[in-house]
Amino acid sequence: MRGKPEARLFVEANLAAGRALALAADQAHYLKTVLRLAPGAAVAFFNGREGEWLAKIEGFSRNACALRIEERIRAQAAEPDLWLLFAPIKRARIDYLVEKATELGVSALLPVTTRHTMVERVNLDRLRAHAVEAAEQSERLSVPALHPLLPLERVLATWDAGRRLVLCDESMTAPPIAEALNAAPAGPWALLVGPEGGFAETELDALKKLPFVCPVSLGPRVLRADTAAIAGLAVLQALLSGRDAR
Amino acid sequence: MRGKPEARLFVEANLAAGRALALAADQAHYLKTVLRLAPGAAVAFFNGREGEWLAKIEGFSRNACALRIEERIRAQAAEPDLWLLFAPIKRARIDYLVEKATELGVSALLPVTTRHTMVERVNLDRLRAHAVEAAEQSERLSVPALHPLLPLERVLATWDAGRRLVLCDESMTAPPIAEALNAAPAGPWALLVGPEGGFAETELDALKKLPFVCPVSLGPRVLRADTAAIAGLAVLQALLSGRDAR
Repeated sequence: MRGKPEARLFVEANLAAGRALALAADQAHYLKTVLRLAPGAAVAFFNGREGEWLAKIEGFSRNACALRIEERIRAQAAEPDLWLLFAPIKRARIDYLVEKATELGVSALLPVTTRHTMVERVNLDRLRAHAVEAAEQSERLSVPALHPLLPLERVLATWDAGRRLVLCDESMTAPPIAEALNAAPAGPWALLVGPEGGFAETELDALKKLPFVCPVSLGPRVLRADTAAIAGLAVLQALLSGRDAR
Repeated sequence: MRGKPEARLFVEANLAAGRALALAADQAHYLKTVLRLAPGAAVAFFNGREGEWLAKIEGFSRNACALRIEERIRAQAAEPDLWLLFAPIKRARIDYLVEKATELGVSALLPVTTRHTMVERVNLDRLRAHAVEAAEQSERLSVPALHPLLPLERVLATWDAGRRLVLCDESMTAPPIAEALNAAPAGPWALLVGPEGGFAETELDALKKLPFVCPVSLGPRVLRADTAAIAGLAVLQALLSGRDAR
């Protein structure tokens, strides 16, 4: 009988039965020193394209780990096509946001600058590492695409009008999210969450004029930007799962 | 014209026009040293019972701040009756969970131990401080009640059967949350999220036999305990806001 894998890791490499897999230093260190695995232990791998595979550790060298891929344990499956556009926030909160958004199944993370954005740079490598770890933990078969930081205007200038953009609007004039989503046409979908200072009024007006923008309210409480992103994604996934997001 | 208050603080004291308000060391320090406010500055206060009031700083002494309450700026209003039952998790994550649950409007936080709970103690003072801060930030007029840690069985032994308990069930046999909530009778409501290790199978079976328990699935991904709590609360608030939670 097949044992449960001791770990689950994302790799870029192609995965196929019988192939050799060589892990670089950080993943080798994790298996050898953190988890204390020995040759013969089973580890699961996914690459976002070819499902999930079981591999056996053949041996460790100084900074590497050699494995042999045995069998596929899950086929690649369709996943929600759901983007998150968010203004960068402070370090601990942006890490948390990326982790939670990945767990909640977003397919793409798009950091955007807005008029009131206070944080002008993002560390894509660090965010990518958080997304990979969350994908490994949450049994996802993919890691969300992480886009470079761009001005919101530039992202919207090339927007595919077929994708609905759900705008978290704190002005309390937008309809509640459940009501707005029930009335909206089919997706695909994206969620836009502003910076801690909120959107500028002119910015909000311009957004609301775009035909693909769907302004929603997340309730009467003032939510932090990371809370709004997580709450919005959770509601989108729950309400659209029977419809078109998945 | 009335200026915008420079800060928003929770106090236990009664609030009424003309009353003197004396703040203890930590809040006095916050106003004087962190925000650098001077006598004459306006600060908003709420106590969970009497709405929100504007007060003016009269002066600082070594470890205190004296204020005079001027006028009520918001009346106390009804808030959702929504409880969160959660198994304690590690420090940074439990702090985050309490913050987010408070922003999302829970009225009571009930830490509970389950069969697989790894963390056997909670620091109620620290969690309470996080709840107060999140209530201050989110414009809530109340701070959620924080209950001491109890075994789940004991909480359920005295459960009011009129309160529906939404059980986040990872076994993938429960209906999706939106479907389950649409079919459920009226609240009030509570959400139960298990520990990182999940519920024991016997525990899950026993829970599902309780007439007030409503098992739901939060989707095909494996969520961390804190993510499940936040996602579940966001969906509950979105779906029930037009119904009975608010």
